[in-house]
Amino acid sequence: LGVEVVVSDPTADAPASPVVRDQLVGGFDDRDTLMELAERSDFLTFEIELVDPDVLKEVSEASGVPVHPAPDTLRTIQDKLVQKKRLRNAGVSVPEFRGVNSAEEVREALDELGYPGMLKARQGGYDGRGNVLIESPQEVEDAFDSISGPAMVEEVVEFERELAVMGCIGAEGTDCFPVTETVHEEEILRSTVSPPRADEERCREARGVANRVLEVMEGRGVYGIELFDTGEDILLNEIAPRPHNSGHWTIEGCQTSQFEQHVRAVTGQPLGSTERRSSTATANLLGDVDERGRAELHGDRQVLETPRAHLHWYGKREVYHLRKMGHITVVGKKDDATTQVLDSVRNLRDECSFEVI
Amino acid sequence: LGVEVVVSDPTADAPASPVVRDQLVGGFDDRDTLMELAERSDFLTFEIELVDPDVLKEVSEASGVPVHPAPDTLRTIQDKLVQKKRLRNAGVSVPEFRGVNSAEEVREALDELGYPGMLKARQGGYDGRGNVLIESPQEVEDAFDSISGPAMVEEVVEFERELAVMGCIGAEGTDCFPVTETVHEEEILRSTVSPPRADEERCREARGVANRVLEVMEGRGVYGIELFDTGEDILLNEIAPRPHNSGHWTIEGCQTSQFEQHVRAVTGQPLGSTERRSSTATANLLGDVDERGRAELHGDRQVLETPRAHLHWYGKREVYHLRKMGHITVVGKKDDATTQVLDSVRNLRDECSFEVI
Repeated sequence: LGVEVVVSDPTADAPASPVVRDQLVGGFDDRDTLMELAERSDFLTFEIELVDPDVLKEVSEASGVPVHPAPDTLRTIQDKLVQKKRLRNAGVSVPEFRGVNSAEEVREALDELGYPGMLKARQGGYDGRGNVLIESPQEVEDAFDSISGPAMVEEVVEFERELAVMGCIGAEGTDCFPVTETVHEEEILRSTVSPPRADEERCREARGVANRVLEVMEGRGVYGIELFDTGEDILLNEIAPRPHNSGHWTIEGCQTSQFEQHVRAVTGQPLGSTERRSSTATANLLGDVDERGRAELHGDRQVLETPRAHLHWYGKREVYHLRKMGHITVVGKKDDATTQVLDSVRNLRDECSFEVI
Repeated sequence: LGVEVVVSDPTADAPASPVVRDQLVGGFDDRDTLMELAERSDFLTFEIELVDPDVLKEVSEASGVPVHPAPDTLRTIQDKLVQKKRLRNAGVSVPEFRGVNSAEEVREALDELGYPGMLKARQGGYDGRGNVLIESPQEVEDAFDSISGPAMVEEVVEFERELAVMGCIGAEGTDCFPVTETVHEEEILRSTVSPPRADEERCREARGVANRVLEVMEGRGVYGIELFDTGEDILLNEIAPRPHNSGHWTIEGCQTSQFEQHVRAVTGQPLGSTERRSSTATANLLGDVDERGRAELHGDRQVLETPRAHLHWYGKREVYHLRKMGHITVVGKKDDATTQVLDSVRNLRDECSFEVI
């Protein structure tokens, strides 16, 4: 597209560094570095929720360089309680929840919602960090102590499956990628498949929820919208204001990838076609080691040897337990069923393992 | 794939620069720069025939860093006369040709081969530069003067169409991408389409010629093999020891792109699947301006708005007459015929034009 990229990251030689024009080193709230980034840019965007929305807004105003999505939307999303209230008020179905500021309030909330319930830190959670499952009143005190801050309690939804929709707000309208099914373990995404193992009616409903979510969001860009399919309802789980792990399949699976779509949106170009090219599944390569350190991946040769399998290696220098190091994508043949493609990518993943060197 | 790239190019801030780890600035025969490149690399490869094979060989031997394809193969290809002799001796069908060192020898050759004939400089030709069509004996003197060096004369082949095959030599065998049809004007590639407008028998024969060519080549990597389809025979036209314009369609059109395939081959990893995903056509965006200078592309918005169309912009700073500035790819729907996809990409290209700014 002729778009050059400069990134800022707190760590020198970050994974993006070898493939971009330049990397600045600075914290996600470092005004000076973000100001330098703005001065070198025509558009600003972010790929992680940890960036400080106030600094982002200030830098954008001072430099005159637009930032997408809007810092206010980022602020809303950063606080899970505010996010959920905002969406519920906009008519989006969400799991039952209560804001809590003490162990006592957690107990009151769970008396109403029932056990088990999920205690979530309002800020900074990621890949299950900041979430604690509470199965009985005896666990409340320890759970709240481990969070130690503003939190919310949410009912544990009994779902048939989880779905995700990558939505996009462009300069001239919105669009959604085809619905994908996501499979989590320990609240970390393990694999995805599109089309999902759900009928067209559920997919239509999921897209409907995603469209309502996009109406609430401000600023252009791609949004990862995670949903619960209870068999009866589609409930919103969480939103990420950025390209998301559940959309990595679009690289091979769709006419336009979520990353190209994000760049098109942020720079104000027309959105690309979200058409699915074939059934596509991904599986994450997660750190399976105990210590943190440099590691070698075994099993990647089999991935490279498998037709219609694609290896994506993120270039992170060190591996640790459950760290997302890369992913595998398998594209289906014309007649491959969803389950077949999903099985195929999982089998390849299961052959992969890390060895600390 | 987790492969980091450092490039060397004579021009600072070359098109590859914004997307690689680092760029060194040095001539294609600059031993010191290539030595520095080798010291920073596990593998060396080249993407242009102008690099000096002797320096490349010397640097590879001095540094112990392998270079692919082999410098000897590059040397063979650089000299069109040596290339043609070598291939003919290996049993590959080629157009009739004669080596010539004087206007007198050109005349003798054309007396045998007949007019019109093509006079080609043995070294350094590119996109038709270094080639002169000779239509009558009166034109011989001027033609040879304009080449002024070792040359060859070749019969002008009456072909039904031109075909190209991207072949690849990997660590454990060779493979070919599906045959593509190429359309040249003024000896510059304008558009490609795969599958070609030729029957399966011709395609099989084209792959057969490509496989014989690969047997002659030494060193791993992707080779662009350009062919004439006379309706009766498949004749070899020219070889490029690198990813080639006629293979750009593989980015969207095949499971593995020619670029990923080249990286896999050079680094000794297994070759990827060359399966075609759908009918695919490309059209080059060539400079349509008279003067050399910075230029803006018009018409790209329509490309971005068209479903299944993809814009590839190379990031060259300046445009000049017939310079390759980028290309458009159109991927076919399941039932789209080859001609439909080709028409579609050409229509988009025809709407594009440059304006010097």
